[in-house]
Amino acid sequence: MSLDHAQTKPHDRLAEILADDLAQVNALIRARMVSEHAPRIPEVTAHLIEAGGKRLRPMLTLAASRMCGYTGPYHVHLAATVEFIHTATLLHDDVVDESGQRRGRPTANLLWDNKSSVLVGDYLFARAFQLMVEPGNLQVLDILANASATIAEGEVLQLTAAQDLGTTEAVYLQIIRGKTAALFSAATQVGGVIADMPDAQVQALYTYGDALGISFQIVDDLLDYGGAGADIGKNIGDDFRERKLTLPVIRAVAAASSEERAFWHRVIAEGDQHEGDLSHAMALMQRHDTLGSTRAEAMIWAGRAKTALNHLPAHPLRDMLRDLADYVVARLN
Amino acid sequence: MSLDHAQTKPHDRLAEILADDLAQVNALIRARMVSEHAPRIPEVTAHLIEAGGKRLRPMLTLAASRMCGYTGPYHVHLAATVEFIHTATLLHDDVVDESGQRRGRPTANLLWDNKSSVLVGDYLFARAFQLMVEPGNLQVLDILANASATIAEGEVLQLTAAQDLGTTEAVYLQIIRGKTAALFSAATQVGGVIADMPDAQVQALYTYGDALGISFQIVDDLLDYGGAGADIGKNIGDDFRERKLTLPVIRAVAAASSEERAFWHRVIAEGDQHEGDLSHAMALMQRHDTLGSTRAEAMIWAGRAKTALNHLPAHPLRDMLRDLADYVVARLN
Repeated sequence: MSLDHAQTKPHDRLAEILADDLAQVNALIRARMVSEHAPRIPEVTAHLIEAGGKRLRPMLTLAASRMCGYTGPYHVHLAATVEFIHTATLLHDDVVDESGQRRGRPTANLLWDNKSSVLVGDYLFARAFQLMVEPGNLQVLDILANASATIAEGEVLQLTAAQDLGTTEAVYLQIIRGKTAALFSAATQVGGVIADMPDAQVQALYTYGDALGISFQIVDDLLDYGGAGADIGKNIGDDFRERKLTLPVIRAVAAASSEERAFWHRVIAEGDQHEGDLSHAMALMQRHDTLGSTRAEAMIWAGRAKTALNHLPAHPLRDMLRDLADYVVARLN
Repeated sequence: MSLDHAQTKPHDRLAEILADDLAQVNALIRARMVSEHAPRIPEVTAHLIEAGGKRLRPMLTLAASRMCGYTGPYHVHLAATVEFIHTATLLHDDVVDESGQRRGRPTANLLWDNKSSVLVGDYLFARAFQLMVEPGNLQVLDILANASATIAEGEVLQLTAAQDLGTTEAVYLQIIRGKTAALFSAATQVGGVIADMPDAQVQALYTYGDALGISFQIVDDLLDYGGAGADIGKNIGDDFRERKLTLPVIRAVAAASSEERAFWHRVIAEGDQHEGDLSHAMALMQRHDTLGSTRAEAMIWAGRAKTALNHLPAHPLRDMLRDLADYVVARLN
């Protein structure tokens, strides 16, 4: 499976089989992002939400609920909820990261201002909250409230761990479980809960989403260094310049000689970066094979995601979710 | 009643009669503001939450529920929820307003950074949400979800209305109803809902909180110009410098001669402010008596708050809430 064969992407196959549900989700998102009084809100929201995001997270909710035989209307509300939470975190992330680009377009904080991004993000969180109350299911609310807290906690942890060479793999896992996996696992879990699945299967949906999200973020962090087998060069190294401790760096620091450690201290802890430093960092990661071992870690998590699916009923959607776990890592090829 | 007689403040009398409940609220707040993984979170939160805020909003929830005969444990959760939402909005407000001081201390965005204020604010919203799910009451969730959306909408509206001389009194009312009154009214309303009060009395609690919040914010905006009878001078004019359209200015603009209108255009719309402009603005507001008429408006809303209380059962707490409405305006004396 490769990026060249778009027709084989499990994500596209999911979008096709869930097309009717997704159309309802998009209609609900559009209906709920309006504001009677503040036109700035739908402007900012539309900029991001219509920008061709893949709707991956809402598709997880739709797929989980359908796979579990749900026939009611509320999987649409919960899928829209998940997308609103995701969009709100993107708006706030761009302020925190001082980003200028997102999905190939200028970010909202650049087009409008940081103030609008903060406040419209808050509005979307509140709208998400209104949507999730509508199904009237307290277990769903509990899951989404906990996920929201875990997301924010992960983001704060990422902020305080940046530039800290002492960041461990355990802290890294905590960060990505918060910033990425918490919403994936909540998205799949609530699909099972509204379908009234037994606890063991709801737990399996949690495990699938959690492992998929962790694998997804490890791969994202690897792609920032061009992937496992990449040449040094084009458009990589953002995390390096922002001095973020991601897994390939954490492992390179752990394996560093004292001379290498001095290098990492200068470029990450002190932020004293010069031309050639990124290439040298890449060479060190190759020397200790941390790009390769990070890729192996992503595959372990993708494997855990697939194993969790064994506890769920056989269904064409289950097969697609399995393929999706493979595809998350296949992005590296 | 005046600020010189601290012992007569209805706020202090409320705190005394609700002392046991408030102690529980404070304990719950402290327990829930911790984060297992990110120590930055309780640091930032404690800075704001221990800084001697008056706990006015949680007291409204406690007073409403006790006045309605509630004997369960969940008024404490809801009061803590309301304080967490308030604290989260303060953190985000200080980022949006680029403030340096709050409650007489440096703001969190100054002591740490804007990033921490944004993300810790998000964390507190999520914690508020977890707390409010615990009572398991869907009507309570509905009220607090709607209030959260109204608050964010009011903040965005304030952002887009700033520097706009065309801002009407209706838009001003919309803004302050969002940024201030929505949380006051939700705070009182949920107290009645968990006490299982009939709809008419829950509605009366809403009306009290809404009118009290509106009166409170009008007075706050008036105090920024030194109050109705104040001398020009010390520590006033922040809104003027930030070019915010508050009620005394909106009314002065509406009554302006063409020469006065040119002045307002220069200082508010264009932001071209020089020494003496604040004094001149104050003189124009005095010429058209807009400080006096704004004070009268605050008294009308305080009166509406008191009238709403007539629909509620006779109770010593009801009398204190009535006094509180008077006191909100008496801050101007």
